[in-house]
This record gives sequence, C-alpha cells and structure tokens, in this order.
Amino acid sequence: MQQHNLLINGKRLQETIETFADFGRTANNGVTRLSLTEMDVQVRNYFKACCEELGLVVTVDDMGCMYATLEGLEKKPAIVIGSHLDTVRKGGRFDGVLGVIAGLEVVRTLIDHQITPKIPITIVNFTNEEGARFEPSMMASGVLSGKFDKAAMLSKRDSAGITFEEALKTSGFNGDANNRIAEATAYLELHIEQGPIMEKENKSIGVVDCVVGMICYEIEVTGESNHAGTTPMDFRKDAFFTANDLVIDLRHKLDALGHKDLVYTMGRFNVLPNIHTVIPNKAIFTIEARHKDGEIIQDVERLIQGLDRSIRGCDVQICKLWDRDTVWFDASICDRIEQAAQSLNYSNLRMVSGAGHDAQFVASFLPSAMIFVPSVQGKSHCEEEFTPYEDCEKGVNVLLTTVLSLLE
Amino acid sequence: MQQHNLLINGKRLQETIETFADFGRTANNGVTRLSLTEMDVQVRNYFKACCEELGLVVTVDDMGCMYATLEGLEKKPAIVIGSHLDTVRKGGRFDGVLGVIAGLEVVRTLIDHQITPKIPITIVNFTNEEGARFEPSMMASGVLSGKFDKAAMLSKRDSAGITFEEALKTSGFNGDANNRIAEATAYLELHIEQGPIMEKENKSIGVVDCVVGMICYEIEVTGESNHAGTTPMDFRKDAFFTANDLVIDLRHKLDALGHKDLVYTMGRFNVLPNIHTVIPNKAIFTIEARHKDGEIIQDVERLIQGLDRSIRGCDVQICKLWDRDTVWFDASICDRIEQAAQSLNYSNLRMVSGAGHDAQFVASFLPSAMIFVPSVQGKSHCEEEFTPYEDCEKGVNVLLTTVLSLLE
Repeated sequence: MQQHNLLINGKRLQETIETFADFGRTANNGVTRLSLTEMDVQVRNYFKACCEELGLVVTVDDMGCMYATLEGLEKKPAIVIGSHLDTVRKGGRFDGVLGVIAGLEVVRTLIDHQITPKIPITIVNFTNEEGARFEPSMMASGVLSGKFDKAAMLSKRDSAGITFEEALKTSGFNGDANNRIAEATAYLELHIEQGPIMEKENKSIGVVDCVVGMICYEIEVTGESNHAGTTPMDFRKDAFFTANDLVIDLRHKLDALGHKDLVYTMGRFNVLPNIHTVIPNKAIFTIEARHKDGEIIQDVERLIQGLDRSIRGCDVQICKLWDRDTVWFDASICDRIEQAAQSLNYSNLRMVSGAGHDAQFVASFLPSAMIFVPSVQGKSHCEEEFTPYEDCEKGVNVLLTTVLSLLE
Repeated sequence: MQQHNLLINGKRLQETIETFADFGRTANNGVTRLSLTEMDVQVRNYFKACCEELGLVVTVDDMGCMYATLEGLEKKPAIVIGSHLDTVRKGGRFDGVLGVIAGLEVVRTLIDHQITPKIPITIVNFTNEEGARFEPSMMASGVLSGKFDKAAMLSKRDSAGITFEEALKTSGFNGDANNRIAEATAYLELHIEQGPIMEKENKSIGVVDCVVGMICYEIEVTGESNHAGTTPMDFRKDAFFTANDLVIDLRHKLDALGHKDLVYTMGRFNVLPNIHTVIPNKAIFTIEARHKDGEIIQDVERLIQGLDRSIRGCDVQICKLWDRDTVWFDASICDRIEQAAQSLNYSNLRMVSGAGHDAQFVASFLPSAMIFVPSVQGKSHCEEEFTPYEDCEKGVNVLLTTVLSLLE
C-alpha cells in the first residue's frame, strides 16, 4: 500500500462529535435521539446542511435513509461511508453517529486538500438502526437488504401508538425508493466496539472480520401454583426451582464445551404469579448464544434441544425464537483496513463483532467492512459511553487511508 | 365428654353454602367477592337478614366487622364463631365463608331444638381477611388485636385509588368501636385446610395446634449490565447467574437441614433490565420459610444470613422483610375439638396451619382454636377450590359438639 500522508483534522472531528451530541444531549452528557423524533429530525437537518455546505448532493430514500454524495471524476459506483444518527434512550455520544461524522470528516479532508475523488463518495445515515422507538433494530438496512418486509416495517408502532410510516411522513424524510443504494464499490462503517476487548488488549483499531451468528431460545417451565404455607415440599411442582435446576445444568454443559469465544446470556427471566407467598407455576426465560463458528452454535442448539422435557413434575417447552448466521465481511477490504492501520503505525487486531450493525445487512448486497475503535470499560448504550478522541481520530484516519487505497 | 347426639342439618348447610356463593359466583363456579365491594355489601346484607330472621342482634364495629349474637341465659362472655365473607379474585366457595355459615348453622340447630344457650353465641364476619383489595390481609382482626394501626389501615388504597376508609363509609358498614369484640369464652374458626395433607392422610377433621411461624427475606444481587454480544464471559458480572448459584446453594443447605415439615418458597424473582440481549445487572428474589418450631426458623435465618455477600463480582444484599412467631391455640379448646371429633367417630389428626387466619390475631386476646376440613387436591384461592359437603357437615358437627361442651 502506498503511503498517502493525508490525515484528517482531529480537532474538527472532536468539535463535530460534540456539536452532533448537542442534538438530544442529556444532563449526564449522554444523548437521547430516538429515530424520527423531533431531535432526530433536527440532527438530520443539521447533517444535511453540513453536507450541502460542502457541495454534496443529498437524497433520501423511501425508508428515510439519507445519502450525501461528493461527485467523483467518473460516474462509477460510490464508496459508501456511514452508520446511523439515532440513539437509544439515554445512549452515548459515539454509537452510530461516529460512523456518519467519519464520512463527513473524510469528505472535508479531501476538500481541504482539493482532491476530487476518482469515483463518488457517499455518506449514508441509515434510519432506525437502534430499534429503540420502533422494533426491530437495523430496520432500514434490513428493508434495503430484503431481510425485512417494508409494509410490515411501516406499520410498526412506537409506545405512543404512532406508526413508523406516520413518523416518517411527519419527519419530512419520506423519500423515493429510487434513491435506495443498490450498488457501491465498498461500504465502510466505523463504529465503537461496545465491548471491552480492545481496551484490554490495548489496541486502537479493530479490523472486523464478521458479525457473529447467534441463536435465541425461549424456555418455558410449567408447574403448579400452590400456597407457600400449606403445601409440603414433596407435593410441589415448583416451576421456579425446576427452571433454576435447568439453568445450572445448561450453564455447566455450555461451559464444558470449552469454547473460549462463545458468549451466552439468559437476559430475560420471569416467574408467575411472582408473589412471595405463592409457589410459581411458570418460569419463562431466554437463552441466547453467539459465536462466529456455525458448528459451535449447533453444539449449543443440541444442548438446548437435549434438555429434559419433564422435570420434578413440571413440563418444559423449548421454543426457538430466531437465529442468524455469521456475516463475513469482504476479505479484501478487511485486508486494506488492516494495511491502512499498519501504514499509520496504529496498534490493531482482527476481531469479531458480537453486536449487530447495519453493515451486516448491507454486506448481503454491497462489499462491506467495519472498523472498530475502543469503548472505555466496554460501556455502550449508556450515558457513560466514551471513546477517547484520539482513538476516534485514529479510526477516521484508517477510514480515510482505506478510502484513498480504494480510489487508487 | 358427654355425648350430645345433636347434629346439624347437612342439607341446609349445603344449600346455605351455595346461596352465599351466588353473591359473586363466577362462570367457573368460583367466587369473586372482594372486601367492601358491591358484592361483599350484598352478601353482608344477606347474612344480616339471615341472622335477624333468627332473632339475633347484629352490630358492626369501626372496622366493619359484623357480630350477630344469640342471647344466652347468662350475661357472660360469648362463644364466638366466625371467619370472613370476602374472597380473593376468582377464589372459591369455601375459604372463609364456611366459618361464618358454620356459626349460622350452629345457631339454627340450637333454635331448631329450642335450646337457649347458657351464655351468648356470637357469629362474626371479619372484614378484609384476604387483603386482595386492600393490603394487608387479616386487616380487621389485625387492628382488633393491636397488631396493625387503625389510621394506617384506613388510608390503604385499592388499585383504583379508593381508600379503605372511603370504601367502609360507602358500604354502610362503618360501625362503632364500642362494638369491637373484647372478651369471649372462646373463639372458634372452622376453615378449609387449603393444603393437601388431610386428603393424603384420609382424615375428615383437622385439630389445628398452631399457625406456624415464618420469616421472609429479600435478596438483591447487583452486578453490571452489558451487551450480550460484545462482553466475553470472563468480563461479566451477571446478576442472574449469581442469583442462580445462590438459589441452588440455599436450596441444598435448606434441604440438608433435614426438617421434614419445613416449607420454603422463592415465589418472587425479578431480573433487570430483563431484556434477552442484555446481561442482567440486578436479580431480586424472596425466600420465605415456615415451621412451627422457632429454633428451626432460626436455623434457616442463620443459613440466609450466612450467604456470601460478594460472589462472581456481584454484591449481595440480604434484607429481612418480616417475620412472625408461631401462634399456639388454646390447648384446652383444642382438646375439646379433638374429643368432639372422636365422640362423633370422625377420623381426625393434629396439624398445623401453614396459612394465616384471623384466628392467629384473635388468639392474642381471646382463647382461640381452629378446625380444618380437607381441600380436594389441596387447592384454594382458585375457582376449583372444593371441600366435599359431607366434610363440611362433619366440620360443623364438630364445631357444634365443641360449642355444646363449652356450654356445659
């Protein structure tokens, strides 16, 4: 790889991050900017104004995704850079928005140096990545990739009963399906890690090989409710104790698989009737597991499916809620990112993404890759979310260098 | 004990049970008659009319408790018989109401045989035993015994925001504190077992020695929420897994105590944020345990208090919610009940009450005792609650025989 010696403006990047964070900044220096709310509309208009000031052409598609394009010397498929501007409630100042601002900073740097790229560069803002107002997450990129049905998405309602379609029309960002991105030279998404690995390994740049596959099951244990005072222990069909035994059993078996990078979580757990004086007749919980290797996920599924269906007088129902396969990113673009980091002398590592991102859907129709920068203490989706500005700067420099290499 | 040969009218008893069940009968042949609701007011008025038709004098105290008195030959402290007419939502036709109807049937039988008792007999209906509309349960008997503060109880609100005081005034059953029962020769409460022991032992009459003591603790585990996909297993402070380990540990230790009659329940269990993709940062659960022997309850408390306070990076807080000591009933009255059952050739057993009853509060100021009749499959607080009519009849016959023995 040629050494370009072109670097972004770190001070401007930091200022831009903080300016964008003013749209929905919370008392604790986080951001609440749910998709298509007034605050999201304001940041979209600000982003549009920034782009138009640079001479970019801004278009909007029928899912509200924004595309800001710097024309190239040739009318060829663009290099697309982006992520999302929406946040969760009381989220941080970096998740999503950093990937959009990174595109802005790359374009600003090219313009600073009066470089007209050979092919167009498009900055994209995908609508409703978080799914915090309208489920599911990655809604717009899901529709663009054909994973989600558009009509079904339009009818999704927020907690106030407003449909996504109504919110989209009200926002003024209900564009044209013809503006959807359909081809590109590459899609590049810079994102915070949202986990603790890079910080622990003391690396500045993560070259993301894939978004790991996962499965999610719901396990429902049905016993019998009875009075806590009048029912001897050996008369009980206690759904909670049975679930407790199942969870322990499953944890031991999963740990015994010995796969270091396997993560599994039982995040939802409810008992019914949930009264301290009543023996529970129901315990319902989820187990989700993630790993890049599909065979390991299959091992996990076999363990779950192999659980006893009748324990201590209780019935056990096992229901698969969903799965997704590991999404591998474009290997040649990943190599370019790694080379860019090395040419800049930034510490880096190959890693996986445990979280979902727009790039995982986009990867199904565009050559895609992701760059990670560290999250302090692995925190994200909270007001404490932080990535040091020098790491943000390094991330955008790697992005710029990758873009320049793609332009060659 | 003298053989009296006086028996109640079983057919009339059954008809009375079913007539009372018409006040709030549900589609599945249960009863919904929450305290001081329109349905409760109707059944109270019906009960009052039944009593007045028999020539009883009905008074009401300042907690809405009703007293219907058959005058005796001497102005001495009455024999008091009763329980409660309120039910839980979708409760049964026997819980509580049987003890009030039993009083009615005893008085009716005496009148049938033109017996004027030596001392008065009073039938009592205690207000809001269930606590299903206004917490806590056994509210009125709690106030009468001085366990609960009257002003605090008056201000309790139902789910619609109505205070107990407002409901009491609206009901027309806001009587005079001077009518509270303060002395009695005996308080006798016939009740369904609400557990499976009598059915299993094939016994018709339970002579209740005590209401067992209990403790209730809340255990709160605090870990750290993180993304289920991005956080390696060894970085986690998973409050749910820690709670899962604690529960297993506690169950093993409690079982190892080897006390056959000890019952313990973890009826309430909640995790936060309770989202399948987020590692729980909180798990909060209750443990309650009951046994008649206070030393065994102390063993349980030592086990709970001895749990580790720091496990797998999580903090463990242990908070005692409440306790109550075992309430022993009047031994001589218990003996009379047992003798009554034997004189009638009814199978019987000495037992404990695992559930709370008005009698446990009344016992603090009146010589008290309870008679149990079996619950089919131990079911109660549900529409399926059932006690065979012949068992109800036997229970009231034992009550009548006990009353006659006390009148001697």
